[in-house]
This record gives sequence, C-alpha cells and structure tokens, in this order.
Amino acid sequence: MAIAAHNQSEQLSSTGDALDTLKTLVKDDLLAVNHTIVERMQSPVLMIPQLAGHLISSGGKRLRPILTLLCSRLCGYQGARHIPLAACVEFIHTATLLHDDVVDDSLLRRGIESANSVWGNQASVLVGDFLFSRAFQIMVENGSLQVLGILSEASAVIAEGEVQQLANSNDLGITEQDCLSVISAKTAKLFAAACEVGAVVSEQPPNTAASLANFGLNFGISFQLVDDIIDYAATDSAIGKQVGDDFREGKVTLPVLLAYIRGGRQDREFWKRTIENGELCDGDLACAISLMKKYEVLDDVRKRAREYASVACKALDGFPDSPERRSLIEATKFCANRSY
Amino acid sequence: MAIAAHNQSEQLSSTGDALDTLKTLVKDDLLAVNHTIVERMQSPVLMIPQLAGHLISSGGKRLRPILTLLCSRLCGYQGARHIPLAACVEFIHTATLLHDDVVDDSLLRRGIESANSVWGNQASVLVGDFLFSRAFQIMVENGSLQVLGILSEASAVIAEGEVQQLANSNDLGITEQDCLSVISAKTAKLFAAACEVGAVVSEQPPNTAASLANFGLNFGISFQLVDDIIDYAATDSAIGKQVGDDFREGKVTLPVLLAYIRGGRQDREFWKRTIENGELCDGDLACAISLMKKYEVLDDVRKRAREYASVACKALDGFPDSPERRSLIEATKFCANRSY
Repeated sequence: MAIAAHNQSEQLSSTGDALDTLKTLVKDDLLAVNHTIVERMQSPVLMIPQLAGHLISSGGKRLRPILTLLCSRLCGYQGARHIPLAACVEFIHTATLLHDDVVDDSLLRRGIESANSVWGNQASVLVGDFLFSRAFQIMVENGSLQVLGILSEASAVIAEGEVQQLANSNDLGITEQDCLSVISAKTAKLFAAACEVGAVVSEQPPNTAASLANFGLNFGISFQLVDDIIDYAATDSAIGKQVGDDFREGKVTLPVLLAYIRGGRQDREFWKRTIENGELCDGDLACAISLMKKYEVLDDVRKRAREYASVACKALDGFPDSPERRSLIEATKFCANRSY
Repeated sequence: MAIAAHNQSEQLSSTGDALDTLKTLVKDDLLAVNHTIVERMQSPVLMIPQLAGHLISSGGKRLRPILTLLCSRLCGYQGARHIPLAACVEFIHTATLLHDDVVDDSLLRRGIESANSVWGNQASVLVGDFLFSRAFQIMVENGSLQVLGILSEASAVIAEGEVQQLANSNDLGITEQDCLSVISAKTAKLFAAACEVGAVVSEQPPNTAASLANFGLNFGISFQLVDDIIDYAATDSAIGKQVGDDFREGKVTLPVLLAYIRGGRQDREFWKRTIENGELCDGDLACAISLMKKYEVLDDVRKRAREYASVACKALDGFPDSPERRSLIEATKFCANRSY
C-alpha cells in the first residue's frame, strides 16, 4: 500500500487549461491532500481501498478540495489544517458519486467503468458510507465544530437535492426555479462549503466566510449548468461519460425544460414520450439535441452559466488582487465556457 | 406534519417483555426522543419524511436510543442533552437499515414492505444519506467533539463490517473469528457507541465510559448472534421478516459456518451448492434447518449468545444497584433468550 500511496501522491493529472493554473498554485498542498486521501481511505477490509481508489485515483479534477486550499491561501492561511479538511471535501464528494452511481445506473464515470458496474451496487453504497464516516472522523480530529457544522449541513442539503432530483424525474411540470434549486443543493452547496471552510480554518470574520461561500455557490451553479449542457453537446470521448445519460434517465435538466417550454405541440409530445414516459427509440437523442439547437436552448443555458460565473467573481471583490484571486476568477470563467 | 408528529410521539409500541421494562423506565425521555426524531426528519423535500417515516414509525424497538437514555440515567445524568443524541443513534441505525435494504434486496423489514420495494433503491440510499448527515448536524448543535468522535468512528466501523460481510458472502472458507468480527463491527459497535455516549454526556471518567462501551459491545454481539439464529428458527409472522433471508443471500453467518464445519462430505456439498453457488431448490431451507438441528448448531450459537450476554452484564459490576442497572441486565438476558 505504501508504494501505491507514494505513486499516487506524485501524480497530478494535467488538463492544460485554467484548472491547471489552480493546481500549480497549490501544488504542494494538493500533493499533501492526495497523500492524506490515500492514507485515510485505507482499511483492513481490502475492498474499501480497492473500490475507493478506483474512483479517487481515476483522474478526477479535485476541483472541490482545490477550492478549499486556494480559499485558505486567499485568506492568508499559513498552517496545515486545511490539508485534511480538503481531503474531507473530496471524500464527501466521492461518497456522493458512489451513491449517485447506484442512483443513475451510470455505466461510465470519468471514462472508466463505474464502481458499481465492477463491484455492484451494494459495495458502492457501503464504501460511500465508509468515506463519508471517515470524513467526519477526520473533521473531529481537526477539531473545529464550525467546520463540522458547515460540512454536515452541506451533506444534508446535497442529499435533499438528490432526492428532489429523483422526485422531479420524468416530470415536465416542474419550473425553472425547481431546476435551479436542485442544482444549488446537489452541486453548488458543496462548492460553497469547500470555499467557506477555507475562510473558517483561516479564522476570518463571518462576512469573509459568507463572501467565499457566495463565490462557491454561484461557481457551483454555473458549473452544473455547463455539465447539463455537456450531456447534450459533447462527444463521449471528451467528457469520459456517455452523452445522453440525463436523457436516458428522464432527468428534467434546464436544457430539457426550456426545450419543452419553448416547443410546439409536436415537440412537446416528443418530450412527453421520451422524458415523461421513458419510451426511447433510435435517433431520439439526436432529435432532442436538434430541438435544443432549434430553440437555442443550449446557448441560453450557457449564457446563464456565464452570468452565475460573473456573480461568483463579483463575490471576490472584497479580496485584494493576488495570484489566488486571479486564478479563482480565471477558473470560474473557464468552467463556464468549457465544452468538456 | 405537526399532527403526524404529535401522534407518533404519543405512541410507544409495546412488546410485553423485558424490553418493555426498559421503555417504561425512560418513558418520558423516549417520548421526547420520538418527538425529536419526527421533528428532525422533516424536509421541504417531501419524499424524505415519507420514506424515513415509513421505516422509523414502523414499530422498531428503539433499542439503541433506549441504551443511550438508560446509560445516561445510570450515570446519574439530569440534563436533556441525551435526548437529541439518542435520536442521532436512531438516525444512524435507520440509515444503515435503508442502505442495508439496498444491499440485501430484503422484501420485508419489520413485517412491512421495505422502503426500497416501495420507493426504489435510489431513494433509499439518498434518504439514508440525509438521515446520516442530519445526525451529524444534530451532534454539532449538541456541541461535544467527543460524542462526534464516538459516533463517526462507529459509523466507519459499521460500514467496514458491512463491506466485510459482503466480501464474506458465499465464502465457506472464512473462520468463526471472521464471523464474530463482522458481527462486532456491523452490529455491536453501534450498541457500544450508544452506551458510551450516555457516559460521555454525563461527563463520567474514561473508565466508566469504557465499561459502558464494553457492556454495549457484548450485548450487541449477543443480540446479533440471536438474530442469526432466528433467521433459521422463527416463523415469518413472529419476526416480521422472511425466515431464510440470510440463506437465500448466501450469508455465511455463524450457524451456517458451524453446520458446514461439522458436516460430513455430503452435508458440505449441500452447503457449497446452496451458500457458495447460490443454487437453491424447494426444500433447501428446510434441509439447512434440519442439518443445523442435527449438528446442534443453533443450540450452540444460543449458548454463545448467552455467554456474551453474561460478559455484558459483568461490565456493569462497577455500577451500584439501581432500577436502570437491573433493567439493563434483564433486557440483555431477555434478548439472549428471545426467539423473535
């Protein structure tokens, strides 16, 4: 195990974009986080590090722990307590991915076989539970009740968002606001928490913590809106998961909802058959994408993603110029414009 | 929701046995715990209280939260902080049941349809996550890092135990010690934690907390050994779940392992076909039960359950005689001898 841990600590996947700049800025911290992750996912029950390692080492962006690291540095933090906390953020994220695999029957996750397709639903659920519990153990060792409060609340909100998303499945009667509520809860809340933890570990006043939480929340909404676009726009190899997953699962994401709302009677029949009734034929995904193009849905959602990114960047106005602030802004804009 | 909460708070299911004595001793506390449970499982996402309520209100014994309440009283605690902590213990237990339903494909749980057969696997996983997160939120409000440490460690150990049990499925090559390790982790650890929390909230010295944890651990092992017997001995209506669940799932519990170890060549072929290969025919469960009788397996496991119960009671030696101490001892003995 020691060798595996060492190797992984030395590897930071490169994407050659603005996210790389983030990684470079916190390179040493991130290596320490990776080391903590590998060290703390160990268990005498071998299936746990095997399964967790499968997902954790499969080239994830580590975006959320990077936010914790960078926000800590943005606040001038000089200690090392942010390292295990960033690992906690990644553990919680990984646990939700493992449980989401059960939820979504995803066959691909980050371009590799999903954990549940290799080990089964049962193992994915239980290893997710382990990582989640381990995250709380690490937070307890870290000793901040405030951090425990932020991440336990985020975890509850994420679960609420996921359940609401499930309840909204196949339901074209939901509103745009319903879509945004789900996005805020299931994705953006953890971005917000990851950033806020950076302020709290640095012992910043509440308004600074609130600004960073606000930055993370809007960044997260923007990020998820783009994810929802990509599911109808990217090629399989670029995103490393199947295009059309959301479509096949009858998820009512904002692109679907807007296309439905803007569509004529015939279009609406199409969306009802495919999304509400789940009756899919060959060519339906292509048809869905062409309807989205016809009604300029993807461009419109992209525009909104950029607006949320812009609001996110504004939340950093109170911080003086620094490499950290600049790279957070760059990364936010980059994510709003990415196509993979 | 307020009415539902009120109604449920007023209902404490009666079983007419030694567990009733426990409930009577902490009657007011337990009503307060039930109230907290119903209040804190609420969410604007309606599927959450619906699904959680389905399981939580379905007549569970509330044994684990009762242990927290009684152990607090045993330590002379006079405050009210043990109420929300007992609710946390029940939330964690309920979350593991919900995730266990996914794991086990159980059709019946406590005699009613299991949550996942009504709402699906996905909802069961996510609502379990919500309850788990909510438990940690409540602990944070409660403010004891020590309690957070005990219950986060217990949660991680439970997950490890469940994963180990999954890895041991269909494997007749495991040892008796392997069986006991799984039982200690997946069941007894939460009993231990529930008891230890009672000492910690009462600000007792470490050796008192250790004694109560030791009591809970041995009680929990005894309790699970009897559960494993019951799966081969009770009638469906008495236990409210299907007899033979463990058998059909290929779980290598202690009764199976002992029957396999003690069996002749032909018997071993039977266990290999049914447990290892999962090839089941009509009459196999009856055959399994008759082999267990032939080799006196169930009597032997019962004897061990009584031994663990006895060790549990010994751990209470340091406490002066009191109604709480007497009822804990009675309940432990009762559980070791129960047949449902």
